[in-house]
Amino acid sequence: MIIAQSIKEPIAAEYAKFSQLFETAFQTSDPILKQVYAHLLSTKGKQIRPVLTLLSAKLCGEVHQATYFAAIGLELLHTVSLIHDDVVDETLQRRGLPSINSAFSNKVAVLSGDYLLAQAFSYVGKFDDQRLTDAFTGVGKTLTEGELLQLRNYNRPQFDEKLYLNIIAKKTAVLFSSCMYTGAVSASATDEQIENLRLFGEYLGLCFQIKDDIFDYSNSNEIGKPTANDIREKKITLPLIYAYNNASEEEKSTADNLLKMPVLDKQAIDWLLNFAQQKGGIKYAESRMAEYRQLAVKQLTGFDNSEITDSLIAALDYIITRKK
Amino acid sequence: MIIAQSIKEPIAAEYAKFSQLFETAFQTSDPILKQVYAHLLSTKGKQIRPVLTLLSAKLCGEVHQATYFAAIGLELLHTVSLIHDDVVDETLQRRGLPSINSAFSNKVAVLSGDYLLAQAFSYVGKFDDQRLTDAFTGVGKTLTEGELLQLRNYNRPQFDEKLYLNIIAKKTAVLFSSCMYTGAVSASATDEQIENLRLFGEYLGLCFQIKDDIFDYSNSNEIGKPTANDIREKKITLPLIYAYNNASEEEKSTADNLLKMPVLDKQAIDWLLNFAQQKGGIKYAESRMAEYRQLAVKQLTGFDNSEITDSLIAALDYIITRKK
Repeated sequence: MIIAQSIKEPIAAEYAKFSQLFETAFQTSDPILKQVYAHLLSTKGKQIRPVLTLLSAKLCGEVHQATYFAAIGLELLHTVSLIHDDVVDETLQRRGLPSINSAFSNKVAVLSGDYLLAQAFSYVGKFDDQRLTDAFTGVGKTLTEGELLQLRNYNRPQFDEKLYLNIIAKKTAVLFSSCMYTGAVSASATDEQIENLRLFGEYLGLCFQIKDDIFDYSNSNEIGKPTANDIREKKITLPLIYAYNNASEEEKSTADNLLKMPVLDKQAIDWLLNFAQQKGGIKYAESRMAEYRQLAVKQLTGFDNSEITDSLIAALDYIITRKK
Repeated sequence: MIIAQSIKEPIAAEYAKFSQLFETAFQTSDPILKQVYAHLLSTKGKQIRPVLTLLSAKLCGEVHQATYFAAIGLELLHTVSLIHDDVVDETLQRRGLPSINSAFSNKVAVLSGDYLLAQAFSYVGKFDDQRLTDAFTGVGKTLTEGELLQLRNYNRPQFDEKLYLNIIAKKTAVLFSSCMYTGAVSASATDEQIENLRLFGEYLGLCFQIKDDIFDYSNSNEIGKPTANDIREKKITLPLIYAYNNASEEEKSTADNLLKMPVLDKQAIDWLLNFAQQKGGIKYAESRMAEYRQLAVKQLTGFDNSEITDSLIAALDYIITRKK
């Protein structure tokens, strides 16, 4: 079994320093922000993204001041995207606790997100490498572009794998690839190393989102039954895309008609779940993850610090095999 | 009569270049963003903030590339704060047209705001002067702090002029002072010049918000009767603060009780409007503007380009005497 702790082993000291610095980014005298921050820090998750930044830097040399700034800034960008997503999707829970919009209000959630976004970009001013600056503003825009692309696809569902991959590359994989990229750049890696590690992050990020999307259809998650949240919201992900494109005309027309319902009822959701499973949609999505895993691992061949490459592969396998 | 056009005269060529550059910040291939941007550009207002940045730079020397970047970035920050405010306040109209949240959706408004915020901060990477970088991230945080401070005051109304001035300094005046500050810094002004112009912007910004707050109580605005929006939302501004602090115990207790109503009815609103007017709250607010005007003008004494100082004073007077 893969334990998240072992992934961090080669960068244990650096991760401890990161954690300390990360908390200082949440110092504030505003009493409302104080409460929001306490809430955020109590639900901060596994912080896989900063771990990747630190591993990437150490694989290429050493963790520098700029590595920490990049790791903190990107984790803040990620945090803001969750806070604002929960507002617009009216999500009430996040990591088992109330979301910021539900624990406080939409107003507090939007404002504290904006504040943290300014905080995230304040690290940009500390870089003296234009590549780090560009990566930062690029990721801020790309995340939003991904969400907007997905929004358009909600309104007019398309069963298009290429479009799906483009959406998840933008809304999810870009953060992982930027973590690996900025880690490598901050450690003065060669252009080839930087590109290899950026691609590793991109493939890992695609696996991350495909895995998330499989949970929606799968009995193998922690709660033992499909969550079906995406289907309920008519979000078309890989298992359903594959099923649709390998279905009879009759099945396609059934799927089309169900997705035209203003609100999907239980029967419609069950039909679509079953359709995606029976047509091999989950197996296909798993096979795509396996392909991306292989491509990711291939990027690491030129690196000789096997302790760290092992950790990166362990992170990849953790993402692919996790149960939630 | 003051015509906005005459304020721009000394920087007509620079403003034309700014306008052109500003529009390029709104280039996008995303069809949703395209619509949002077209909507924003059709309602972009008088752009008094970038005009101030350009005037400030030219007063100290010349408008440089960094001046344009600062002007564009700060106007984008201002635009985002309006878009996100309209989401959280559920405002349906802005400058006579539907707000982004009402014309599109909350989701599109939050996301396009986030995208523009990343765009605004992308200019930070173009500065090679740390003072400009710091001003930028500082203003992003201060704006949010002001909104949060105001939010706390909604929940527990306080008739405290110092608190009021702190709120409006943060939520409004900081943008104006930053415009003047970055303009001066970008033109390599002396520290004294920079501080004088920053203060000019601060005083002008205080006047801007006090004037806005007077409209709520006054018959002298364009529609001829008080809008009373702030009172309706229990937002305590200067005219009411002055009235309260100069009222009898009985009047104070009436005001307290009215503001405890979950929703203020017409009678309560009328009583508070009348109370603020009768106690001289509007006159007092106007006298504060006159004091800040004097302090602002005083900051310009050391500058000898009278064409530009005249324009700055005209901008100040425009803000103080406008009817909407």
